[in-house]
Amino acid sequence: MAEVKLLGFWYSPFTHRVEWALKLKGVKYEYIEEDRDNKSSLLLQSNPVHKKVPVLIHNGKPIVESMVILEYIDETFEGPSILPKDPYDRALARFWSKFLGDKVAAVVNTFFRKGEEQEKGKEEVYEMLKVLDNELKDKKFFVGDKFGFADIAANLVGFWLGVFEEGYGVVLVTSEKFPNFSRWRDEYINCSQVKESLPSRDELLAFFRARFQAVVASISAPK
Amino acid sequence: MAEVKLLGFWYSPFTHRVEWALKLKGVKYEYIEEDRDNKSSLLLQSNPVHKKVPVLIHNGKPIVESMVILEYIDETFEGPSILPKDPYDRALARFWSKFLGDKVAAVVNTFFRKGEEQEKGKEEVYEMLKVLDNELKDKKFFVGDKFGFADIAANLVGFWLGVFEEGYGVVLVTSEKFPNFSRWRDEYINCSQVKESLPSRDELLAFFRARFQAVVASISAPK
Repeated sequence: MAEVKLLGFWYSPFTHRVEWALKLKGVKYEYIEEDRDNKSSLLLQSNPVHKKVPVLIHNGKPIVESMVILEYIDETFEGPSILPKDPYDRALARFWSKFLGDKVAAVVNTFFRKGEEQEKGKEEVYEMLKVLDNELKDKKFFVGDKFGFADIAANLVGFWLGVFEEGYGVVLVTSEKFPNFSRWRDEYINCSQVKESLPSRDELLAFFRARFQAVVASISAPK
Repeated sequence: MAEVKLLGFWYSPFTHRVEWALKLKGVKYEYIEEDRDNKSSLLLQSNPVHKKVPVLIHNGKPIVESMVILEYIDETFEGPSILPKDPYDRALARFWSKFLGDKVAAVVNTFFRKGEEQEKGKEEVYEMLKVLDNELKDKKFFVGDKFGFADIAANLVGFWLGVFEEGYGVVLVTSEKFPNFSRWRDEYINCSQVKESLPSRDELLAFFRARFQAVVASISAPK
């Protein structure tokens, strides 16, 4: 019997991507919530390089990095395709997934760092939003008319970013500045493929509010 | 007739990855050398987001990001497989490719920046070498016994890094500090799959020596 385990944090967009893909495929799995301050030995053994979630364990073998896991899930399990069929469309989906992946540090720096790092992060987030605003003009999904790989990769900017903005008390995305991205984000959050999979916004907001306060407190303290 | 064009820089490890993959597959292509100070309109139109090489143009359609292009080449053209066949091995290959991709900025900062950025880059390069030294113990290739995707992604650390060290006059990799990595690198450069594809070391060295001097000169000048 195929045994599938997922080690994750419930509030992590990267864990969410994997859960989302498993649900799309209809794969039964055991979810194990990790504690970031006390990671399990299973996590540390399964991802010795990064010691991070998510980790998918399939028949005892660990796979790490959310989008690498998504490729694995798509290649391994039956069910609807996550990547498009056409090689050129697959390349587009992987391109946007990489683009979004490359901006994770900028988003993190904007909300979880201070000073120069934060300012640089914010600048890079604005650059990213400019690109996305241009790309998502008249578009609902990243590739063709079909929900898939890149749309799952977009959960950080499509959902978590808005939670961060509200929790942190800073607005980066306005419909004046980024009209296409704003419209896309509203549609993203409310479209059936996405809506059903997202965690509770209120619970996430409460969680990140507390995290932001802890970060601010640790930065205010003398080094 | 399938028409394949590659826009690149001859000295770029990322361009080299794509050339390597095309040659492995036996794909005929037209190579177009770009000028970094005067990029062609074909390049700017083909990669409007990053405006960078390499760009593969297949039947008029552009594909960008070296490892995304490799996936495309593997899915589109006949010939020996670049990614392994088994989904788990594919995931390992993609993991190492991503790991190496995530360290590009650190390598660049170590050799092409100064001050704090350079110091942070160097620290991160040492961390990377530690991980690779551990991973490559008793290994010739990254996944199984077969040359492929991750080994192509490793060209930056397997070949260019040594050129940078010599050109810049700094040694990061010693066989005392990183014995497994050193042994792997020697084998990598000399194994038939790799050796035949690499550009001339002397020409690269001359090119990067001049680049490093220009960088140092621009940094010494008052801002």
